[in-house]
Amino acid sequence: MAHLLSTSFSVKISSSNRPCGQPLNQVRAVLPNSFTIKTSKSHFKRLVSKGDRARKSCVVLATAVPVSKEVSANPRSGSDGSPSDSSKPQRVMVIGGDGYCGWATALHLSNKGYEVAIVDSLVRRLMDHQLGLDSLTPISSIHNRLRCWKAITGKTIELYIGDVCDFEFLSDTFNSFEPDAVVHFGEQRSAPYSMIDRSRAVFTQKNNVIGTLNVLFAIKEFREQCHLVKLGTMGEYGTPNIDIEEGYITITHNGRTDTLPYPKQASSFYHLSKVHDSNNIAFTCKAWGIRATDLNQGVVYGVKTDETSMHEQLCNRLDYDGVFGTALNRFCVQAAVGHPLTVYGKGGQTRGYLDIRDTVQCVELAIANPANPGEFRVFNQFTEQFSVNELAALVTKAGKKLGLDVQTISVPNPRVEAEEHYYNAKHTKLIELGLKPHLLSNSLLDSLLNFAIEFKDRVDTKQIMPSVSWKKIGVKPQTMPAN
Amino acid sequence: MAHLLSTSFSVKISSSNRPCGQPLNQVRAVLPNSFTIKTSKSHFKRLVSKGDRARKSCVVLATAVPVSKEVSANPRSGSDGSPSDSSKPQRVMVIGGDGYCGWATALHLSNKGYEVAIVDSLVRRLMDHQLGLDSLTPISSIHNRLRCWKAITGKTIELYIGDVCDFEFLSDTFNSFEPDAVVHFGEQRSAPYSMIDRSRAVFTQKNNVIGTLNVLFAIKEFREQCHLVKLGTMGEYGTPNIDIEEGYITITHNGRTDTLPYPKQASSFYHLSKVHDSNNIAFTCKAWGIRATDLNQGVVYGVKTDETSMHEQLCNRLDYDGVFGTALNRFCVQAAVGHPLTVYGKGGQTRGYLDIRDTVQCVELAIANPANPGEFRVFNQFTEQFSVNELAALVTKAGKKLGLDVQTISVPNPRVEAEEHYYNAKHTKLIELGLKPHLLSNSLLDSLLNFAIEFKDRVDTKQIMPSVSWKKIGVKPQTMPAN
Repeated sequence: MAHLLSTSFSVKISSSNRPCGQPLNQVRAVLPNSFTIKTSKSHFKRLVSKGDRARKSCVVLATAVPVSKEVSANPRSGSDGSPSDSSKPQRVMVIGGDGYCGWATALHLSNKGYEVAIVDSLVRRLMDHQLGLDSLTPISSIHNRLRCWKAITGKTIELYIGDVCDFEFLSDTFNSFEPDAVVHFGEQRSAPYSMIDRSRAVFTQKNNVIGTLNVLFAIKEFREQCHLVKLGTMGEYGTPNIDIEEGYITITHNGRTDTLPYPKQASSFYHLSKVHDSNNIAFTCKAWGIRATDLNQGVVYGVKTDETSMHEQLCNRLDYDGVFGTALNRFCVQAAVGHPLTVYGKGGQTRGYLDIRDTVQCVELAIANPANPGEFRVFNQFTEQFSVNELAALVTKAGKKLGLDVQTISVPNPRVEAEEHYYNAKHTKLIELGLKPHLLSNSLLDSLLNFAIEFKDRVDTKQIMPSVSWKKIGVKPQTMPAN
Repeated sequence: MAHLLSTSFSVKISSSNRPCGQPLNQVRAVLPNSFTIKTSKSHFKRLVSKGDRARKSCVVLATAVPVSKEVSANPRSGSDGSPSDSSKPQRVMVIGGDGYCGWATALHLSNKGYEVAIVDSLVRRLMDHQLGLDSLTPISSIHNRLRCWKAITGKTIELYIGDVCDFEFLSDTFNSFEPDAVVHFGEQRSAPYSMIDRSRAVFTQKNNVIGTLNVLFAIKEFREQCHLVKLGTMGEYGTPNIDIEEGYITITHNGRTDTLPYPKQASSFYHLSKVHDSNNIAFTCKAWGIRATDLNQGVVYGVKTDETSMHEQLCNRLDYDGVFGTALNRFCVQAAVGHPLTVYGKGGQTRGYLDIRDTVQCVELAIANPANPGEFRVFNQFTEQFSVNELAALVTKAGKKLGLDVQTISVPNPRVEAEEHYYNAKHTKLIELGLKPHLLSNSLLDSLLNFAIEFKDRVDTKQIMPSVSWKKIGVKPQTMPAN
């Protein structure tokens, strides 16, 4: 993996007295005068005594009070009713908690009274550097983000910086944090990224599959009752000519009947890696009694959640480029800067979509209603279906209201996919658990467009067009030209 | 992967004058007076001029004549009608050609007039050393095997020693040998091995998945018309309660119909790795137009083929241990040494089986009738179904005829699997291509048992019992105790 630092990072945090600035809204805690970052030694006492294995990993506790006083500052017990059936709040490890969905989820769970730890190698930020990309929104360092969160809410989110493919690091985080649930967002999550070149294809499958295998082994070995909430993707199913069910389908064939895993037809090395994960997890549920929920998520749009809106240093990333940007977010940014909306091919590609506020809600519902031991539960996590052409029409209409002249162009489809097809995917299980969807309305589109307009000076228009071709992928390392 | 040397091997071959001894039977070539092993430099001329990339890989041409004279000694053109529709014989790369199925296949194809190269890291031999296991049959080094083959038949099989997970090595072998077909046996192929510990589970998936990805990229980049013949396993399907079809199933659901990949339910990290491979290959057929045949092979039994019987130095391996041994072969060795046949659990586990002489026949049929560009073709490669109890009864009966008192014991099942289940798997496509099955008859069982008796002094009875538990697998490295 010549293009990536694939090992765990060694991070040294110096003390800092920088306050996070005036909170914008919903400030719930008195802002302390100063902040210090401490590396917690107490959490390692047992590990160190076991053989000094902890030295190789790095735990950073972002906190505004001395570590010794932290116990009393721990998140509330069932204050919002979420982890209500226990006197102790559930401990949730969010792997990939510095990313787009992971960050919003970590804050949401912390806000709801869960004790949260983020585990992240920060490699997603490295990928931006390597490809010359950047979020539309300026995002703070994970350390500043957590300092700010602590300052505003009084809540501590622990931070473990390292790679879950490094099992020694992962073991230490499990034994230090002792999670009741693991939310696993910690994968390379871009289909185009996985189709850049051979090295990135191999990295994507290796990183995602081995990382998840390690999480499964860590649960089996150290926390066998821990509930795994794993982010899959609706893209695992492809576009079959029959209804898509939630994970399983009952088939009658030659007079006999069985309920079997729903057939998968993934269409990138990234989507395939998620199929591999699903198969691996299903096996360990059966063989070891792991309890797992696979959230086959649709395309996420939006940027603000209740928590990330609290302060500018908590702001989430918003990708609009051809590698990490997804359909609706990209269209809004394109509209904001006067770039034609880029429809790939015929634009009949239909997928499930959801608001990022529903992502965090779904994950919380899965944690609050865990799978049984040995159960491999699959939920389709989206709220509405749209074709690309329908999205383009919605953005055009919303743009007009704001005085934008939005054009649409068809560009050659860089992917190999059906551009006109049947699509009807079930998504009732999360609704049954209590999901209250934020459907895509004109008002949301207005707010997303206004948000894009607010940051439009940060847009690099050279990042907008698709730069990765499914058919042209080769073995030579590809880089982004600096033009 | 602390338990394995995972990189390519650097091999230095010294000249040798050791003849392979008197051929036992079917000698077709006059035995030369001496043999020399030469490292061919000529094959690298182009590569070296491209930038000296070839230095890191190692090509060994096992030959009995100087390399300069090799052209005239090349295998015959279509002499047996196999690669008949072309004036030039097809060039077939056999990855994993030093293993049980791979070795028999490489010799068979060479004998049928194909130009054959073996690509192998020899890691299978290392695993035997590491686990303290050994084949029932003494097997020669790959170098002696190929010298002997050349001496007996006059045919050269090229040898490339290295790891297909090393893409630089694989690129060089592709550009040097220029295969028309690749037969890919080069995977960790034991379910129990993959369930020894975390390290071996991860190794199995990484090795198998990345190796196959590399092969797909090499075909796309260097030999786009090359036909991939990939060994899968019937174990990918698991034991569904409906008939198992060959790769695809037509499903009518809510009034609509589609033909989709047959749902997979693999039950070890090894079997899962093959499912991952199948999904990856299917995608590349669709996206890149790769032509591929996935041979979902049943449990192979037997040891002799026409070619491996020609000389004792060509003898194939026969595994009887709890890690690499498979049902029928193990039972024959157990009967030969007076060890009770070890039935796991209830013994109702039913699977497809085939004679190794049919393995080589099936692979040849697949090569001679290649998949179309873009086609992902799946054949179920077995000839008969048996339950474990049925196999035990057959071996008991055959043993009685030879004066053996064969007992059967039930041992706790180390696997997680159904012990009584419906099983009916289709296997007509290879028959339609012309497969003439060698069905399991009394005479074959007699010969297998006699073969086991011939080598029974080599049996280490401590290797017989299952040593790997699906449920007890953990994260600590497991080794075989030297007791």
